[in-house]
Amino acid sequence: MSKERLVVAVVGATGAVGREMLKTLEEREFPAYEVRALASARSAGTTVPFKGGELTVQELTEDSFGDVDIALFSAGGGTSAKFAPHAVKAGCVVVDNSSQWRMDERCPLVVPEVNPDDLKWHNGIIANPNCSTIQMVVALKPLHDAATIRRVVVSTYQAVSGTGQKAIDELETQVRQMFNLQEPEAKVYPHRIAFNCLPHIDVFLEDGYTKEERKMIEETVKIMGDASIKVTATTVRVPVFYGHSESLNVETEKKLTAAQARAVLSQAPGVTVLDNPEEKIYPMAIDAAGEDDTFVGRIREDHTIENGLNMWVVADNLRKGAALNAVQVAEELIDRSLLDIGDPDKFL
Amino acid sequence: MSKERLVVAVVGATGAVGREMLKTLEEREFPAYEVRALASARSAGTTVPFKGGELTVQELTEDSFGDVDIALFSAGGGTSAKFAPHAVKAGCVVVDNSSQWRMDERCPLVVPEVNPDDLKWHNGIIANPNCSTIQMVVALKPLHDAATIRRVVVSTYQAVSGTGQKAIDELETQVRQMFNLQEPEAKVYPHRIAFNCLPHIDVFLEDGYTKEERKMIEETVKIMGDASIKVTATTVRVPVFYGHSESLNVETEKKLTAAQARAVLSQAPGVTVLDNPEEKIYPMAIDAAGEDDTFVGRIREDHTIENGLNMWVVADNLRKGAALNAVQVAEELIDRSLLDIGDPDKFL
Repeated sequence: MSKERLVVAVVGATGAVGREMLKTLEEREFPAYEVRALASARSAGTTVPFKGGELTVQELTEDSFGDVDIALFSAGGGTSAKFAPHAVKAGCVVVDNSSQWRMDERCPLVVPEVNPDDLKWHNGIIANPNCSTIQMVVALKPLHDAATIRRVVVSTYQAVSGTGQKAIDELETQVRQMFNLQEPEAKVYPHRIAFNCLPHIDVFLEDGYTKEERKMIEETVKIMGDASIKVTATTVRVPVFYGHSESLNVETEKKLTAAQARAVLSQAPGVTVLDNPEEKIYPMAIDAAGEDDTFVGRIREDHTIENGLNMWVVADNLRKGAALNAVQVAEELIDRSLLDIGDPDKFL
Repeated sequence: MSKERLVVAVVGATGAVGREMLKTLEEREFPAYEVRALASARSAGTTVPFKGGELTVQELTEDSFGDVDIALFSAGGGTSAKFAPHAVKAGCVVVDNSSQWRMDERCPLVVPEVNPDDLKWHNGIIANPNCSTIQMVVALKPLHDAATIRRVVVSTYQAVSGTGQKAIDELETQVRQMFNLQEPEAKVYPHRIAFNCLPHIDVFLEDGYTKEERKMIEETVKIMGDASIKVTATTVRVPVFYGHSESLNVETEKKLTAAQARAVLSQAPGVTVLDNPEEKIYPMAIDAAGEDDTFVGRIREDHTIENGLNMWVVADNLRKGAALNAVQVAEELIDRSLLDIGDPDKFL
């Protein structure tokens, strides 16, 4: 592969995350010679905006990756399962936003601010973590380094854009229907999301947790590289368009005062501390939308345990939670010259 | 006082909770000979609906309580501080929905399903707990009896109606403004609530907690009558009109499996268990609105500690969280013949 003529493909270019990936590549002046938009046959021939012009969407096939150096996948787990191995076979490094490869032992699961060194052992597919997990670990890592995290209790307040464009449309449509005295229709979610909270994200598992909750528990351990960190989660969809919020209760081995935690987080990469309650300053979804950083505030000591902290963590779920993290991974791969693939048949 | 000719006054009858109190008295066929609506001079002369007709609102003064047996106050802490002592002086028992008397040692803080016996030692004023606290203790009490609760980590998802009618109007207005491409105005809350989450309810205290969070911590101990129960809270306003939701993480002394917790809660007064994830059945604000019970679901074992449970608790914040609980307290006072006041000067 030649950096001078780097070809990047966005797979699932017409989706909410795909569009954000294109926007992020553009904004960050990603060093690509060519950016290609791929999607299913249904979307082939349509266009997506890029750099003031448009890209014509090409149909995704097993042969799409012959001259592609990096493919950013965001087209669902099924598409990733089917096509990522073919991309790798063709010599293309895949950064995959689906959950398909995240817990696969052959694939590093990377948040550049947290575990960039895991990129060194990739085999062609690097997994992008779940959106709720990414912003949580960005906030947890500096605290773990400073005081060793033992346990985290997290409750989430997740935006509908995490589900995709259809869910954005559904929230808007339901609100309009209600304001026009019509019965709101639920199609994307099993129940009405307008002016409601749904304690249900992704499918339910046997032990009563949702898959989203399981992801936050398992992915955190893999990313942080420390199986001693225990996480329990309740994930909830709220009627917000953009920006996931999270209420975190964190127990550490060593004592961190709120002031110390604030100081540690203020120095951390990718984190902005917004924590001045007197001035009514704290992180909010509407402020995080469109921003790259993870915002942390409401930092205060939990008086019920010896070494505990409560905090409120907000980030743009489409950017840091998906598109931006994937592009950052791609940037790291280039900067560290990690685009070589050892065994191209590893996933076939 | 004579039960046959019981006079009940609703103080703050024009507010969101006051109107709900009137509705609750009506629906439960409360044994009142007369129901009187009181409010500030500003509202005097207006009417409020009651039993198919209307009540004309009378001005609240220090002399309003001469022939009143029970007064349900919901007109803010200042009004309760000023007028409740005069009501007691006149021989009227006060059930107060404000935070004014809750932590006062002279006043029991009562949720009838949890600590009805505390009514026995009242001195004329019985405090109604904070809305978020009420639904939480209704769900916690049966678990505490079964397995002894040590620690609770709660994150709330609170409806705007908890703030009052003005906040209900503000959410609606902001949504309409946004859908008409106008800039949404924030008047009641410091920031936009439409399609946003505000980690800020009531004022901030010195240690970084809000007063709402402090209430959940302190009131729980007082109601449960057990200072060993440790609670930490993060309280959050969400763009929902009616119904508070809560994510609870509960640590107990004895082990309770999810099935055992479900069985215990199914038998508990005022609780309905809605916990069938396979059928997508769990508590939601839109279902709880207009209902009397506290709904509990998503009950599952927390694998990060030896004896832990996660659960999702939802109730109508205006009903069980305020009006209904106050009316239930009044009913208990009548049933137990506890309307006598020992020292009428106790609060003056």
